[in-house]
Amino acid sequence: MTESQDLAAVAAAASAAAGPFADASPADRARALVAVADALDAAADELVSIAMRETGLGEPRLRGELTRTSVQLRLFAETVLDGTYLDVRIDDADPDFVLGARAEVRRMLVPVGPVVNFAASNFPFAFSVAGGDTASALAAGCPVVLKAHPGHPELSRATAATVRDALAAAGLPDGVFQLVEGVEAGVAILQDPRIRAASFTGSLRAGRHLADLAAARPSPIPFYGELGSVNPVFVTRAAIDERAAELAAGYVASVSGSAGQLCTKPGVVFVPAGAEAADRLVARVAEAAAGLAEHRLLNPGITRGFAARRGEVLGAPGVVAVAEGALRVDADEQGWATPTILRVSLDDFRASREQLAEEAFGPLSILVEVPDGADLADLVDEFLEGELTATVHLGADEASGAEHDASRALVRALADRVGRVLVGGWPTGVAVTPAMQHGGPWPATTDAGGSTSVGTAAISRFLRPVAYQSVPDALLPPALQDANPWNVPQRRSPAGQSRGWGATAAAAIA
Amino acid sequence: MTESQDLAAVAAAASAAAGPFADASPADRARALVAVADALDAAADELVSIAMRETGLGEPRLRGELTRTSVQLRLFAETVLDGTYLDVRIDDADPDFVLGARAEVRRMLVPVGPVVNFAASNFPFAFSVAGGDTASALAAGCPVVLKAHPGHPELSRATAATVRDALAAAGLPDGVFQLVEGVEAGVAILQDPRIRAASFTGSLRAGRHLADLAAARPSPIPFYGELGSVNPVFVTRAAIDERAAELAAGYVASVSGSAGQLCTKPGVVFVPAGAEAADRLVARVAEAAAGLAEHRLLNPGITRGFAARRGEVLGAPGVVAVAEGALRVDADEQGWATPTILRVSLDDFRASREQLAEEAFGPLSILVEVPDGADLADLVDEFLEGELTATVHLGADEASGAEHDASRALVRALADRVGRVLVGGWPTGVAVTPAMQHGGPWPATTDAGGSTSVGTAAISRFLRPVAYQSVPDALLPPALQDANPWNVPQRRSPAGQSRGWGATAAAAIA
Repeated sequence: MTESQDLAAVAAAASAAAGPFADASPADRARALVAVADALDAAADELVSIAMRETGLGEPRLRGELTRTSVQLRLFAETVLDGTYLDVRIDDADPDFVLGARAEVRRMLVPVGPVVNFAASNFPFAFSVAGGDTASALAAGCPVVLKAHPGHPELSRATAATVRDALAAAGLPDGVFQLVEGVEAGVAILQDPRIRAASFTGSLRAGRHLADLAAARPSPIPFYGELGSVNPVFVTRAAIDERAAELAAGYVASVSGSAGQLCTKPGVVFVPAGAEAADRLVARVAEAAAGLAEHRLLNPGITRGFAARRGEVLGAPGVVAVAEGALRVDADEQGWATPTILRVSLDDFRASREQLAEEAFGPLSILVEVPDGADLADLVDEFLEGELTATVHLGADEASGAEHDASRALVRALADRVGRVLVGGWPTGVAVTPAMQHGGPWPATTDAGGSTSVGTAAISRFLRPVAYQSVPDALLPPALQDANPWNVPQRRSPAGQSRGWGATAAAAIA
Repeated sequence: MTESQDLAAVAAAASAAAGPFADASPADRARALVAVADALDAAADELVSIAMRETGLGEPRLRGELTRTSVQLRLFAETVLDGTYLDVRIDDADPDFVLGARAEVRRMLVPVGPVVNFAASNFPFAFSVAGGDTASALAAGCPVVLKAHPGHPELSRATAATVRDALAAAGLPDGVFQLVEGVEAGVAILQDPRIRAASFTGSLRAGRHLADLAAARPSPIPFYGELGSVNPVFVTRAAIDERAAELAAGYVASVSGSAGQLCTKPGVVFVPAGAEAADRLVARVAEAAAGLAEHRLLNPGITRGFAARRGEVLGAPGVVAVAEGALRVDADEQGWATPTILRVSLDDFRASREQLAEEAFGPLSILVEVPDGADLADLVDEFLEGELTATVHLGADEASGAEHDASRALVRALADRVGRVLVGGWPTGVAVTPAMQHGGPWPATTDAGGSTSVGTAAISRFLRPVAYQSVPDALLPPALQDANPWNVPQRRSPAGQSRGWGATAAAAIA
């Protein structure tokens, strides 16, 4: 839509579509998701070429991202057909219930209603118009109003047209998917009483602002914001001894890929100070970074932000360049960067915490040199608030052998602060799989890490429970009927169990 | 605690207890819950006698409520041992993953950390110190700071001592359960950065205030507030024709039980206007209400609130008493009430919507007379925002026979606005069972009905997901280990499936 967009009509159309879409069978909803996936795949050449121009990202990355986007839609089609996500529970009526006769209660999750999704700039497919938030909301049965990101307007319109056409061909009403553009439109839709939930991927500042607006509505709604993170990494001396070259290569690739414009980019790496082994790691990092070509940043706004953050970091006392990198701004105000990788002592890092420990969105990362004998779990307590990820690189004996006690304490401490803990590997490249978690305690996500925006559990954000008490079969939704026409898992609590509650526990305990 | 309570020490103790408590085995946590249940049962005589004095509620009700409270703890012990609530997912590593090789990812839910629970006045056991919020938070593995309700201070202290002693005897650290008193203490604890979630049962005004504070924290936290509801009831002419006396008796019992001080009390009942049958219902309601003895209200504050709301309702144009009821205030400022039941035409109800359609906490309910031919589903759209419950009374043919189309539309419309839909029966008396849902769209609950405060799903409020990627078995929490020492359900996605995603969907669709 353009400046003349009629936002009340958008909200009304979404609201009108909510009931019919919620009642669509799993097969119909799955068919719609697969149709969108097929349409995106078919339009790949056109969409990728627009995306290259608008975002500066490379073709292989964009083709891979588009495939990821269509795979994600197919995975959610499976999720819908499987039906486990509905969490159907049936408590049979129980005249002998321990607190007096109990009526039959049947419970399932239902769509919350129309959702507004705020698209991200850095994944023009996978976290934008047809990305994970849209896929999971549609899978849940919620109409989507997509607030386009201004960084790729033409791509947003082309993708939206593809999605709309596919949904229309699948027989769904227009209001199931709509695009709006502009900050004011996004804010207005977020505040419309017909909108029942919101999702967002972007900066802490913008995310906090929108979360506050959502909470301040006359009828507050859940706001699922993914605000990024520093993604700390911890490397032990044994890991460096065993595989310095591999670590250096993996690190530089993770920092420089997509010009570091990923919410899981490793921003701070704690390494052992002063040892010969550590110096060898640093030398190899410098080597690996030296050969890299410059990469365009997404847009002039991100270039300005990166330039400012980079200057701040470079200006902090004690910061030394491992690979100084460069940032060139062209005539169109687009930035072109090579990775900036720095080292600093733990004491200097601590002293300039404000400048150094905050996310720098772009190809920049800091190696923090930790003195011998420091407890890594203590660093977790000192420096981590809430993170999407944390990664640990261990030596073989620390990972599973005789010396794993400290490693276990470190993993345990990290699990308290982050949504995903990795041992080995690098946090970028978030797999779209059932067990994935992309979200963590504040400020990683606005809802204190209770949700994920990647993986099949992302559907839960757009559902709420409804119980049906003593409702005759003919009036129940299909998923709760005894005949179970949708063939979903139904978890049943038969009569006669309640007097044993606590007894099973007692037996297990004894 | 008293005015001199050291709130920073309370938060510090809760925070210190969080790690060890989170790591406790299911058996240890279940043992603690059963120990608290046993201790409450053993202290019943003392606790019930204090409760009678402080709340004015009757002995059978209070004994039943205490049993409900201990049963609830036992049910959560079963939930903990069962382990399904952990939602363990294991995605095997997959070199052939459709988007490139996938690492192993294991995901489970973990405790969010220390929780503050704000106790309610109207259930001095089941929604107070050792009530559902405490039971579900402890089951989740979260330390609890309990903000006592000022309506029953002595009972709160005695119950807290019972809980604390039982937990200590079970070997848990002091910080796992603590009591604080006073509005300022509650607000301070809610704003302490070490507190990670909050729950509340009470008024819309107080709940909104606290929810706003939770959202405005530097690190916002989830606030699960259950704010009450009008709990509309819809009665058809056929239902009255079939069982007027039974309906009248059930209705009056539901309105007058516990002096109507229940969040699920039916506050508005839509009945067919002007028919001989409807008049018969009204006459029977008047009869049933006439015989009731006065019941003390919980405390002087609630008495003042009820007096004001009752006056407002009685003063609205067109409102006619079916049973006028009475409210007497004694020398101690305690109120003593008999039920006030009123009738009003749909037009007059609509004209005075502000006065009539809002919750009146106490023994008051309104019969709204709906003209012939009105569509009940339209009334849902017109008058319901978000409710804990809605109840429908149908004739036999409307429930399951030839005439059930309109009934289905009504149940469908209600499911969009409420957390629990009943066909027959009355909404008071919320069963503590796995499928129960106690929560609904705003303003019934602050989180738009995404959670419940009754039933085993209440545990979900105090959990968040963590994924472990490529973490060696020795460093994994027990629930995620291959040996599965806690014997919890593990949902596994083997390698090799992803290339079929969408194909199953396509097959199911074809």
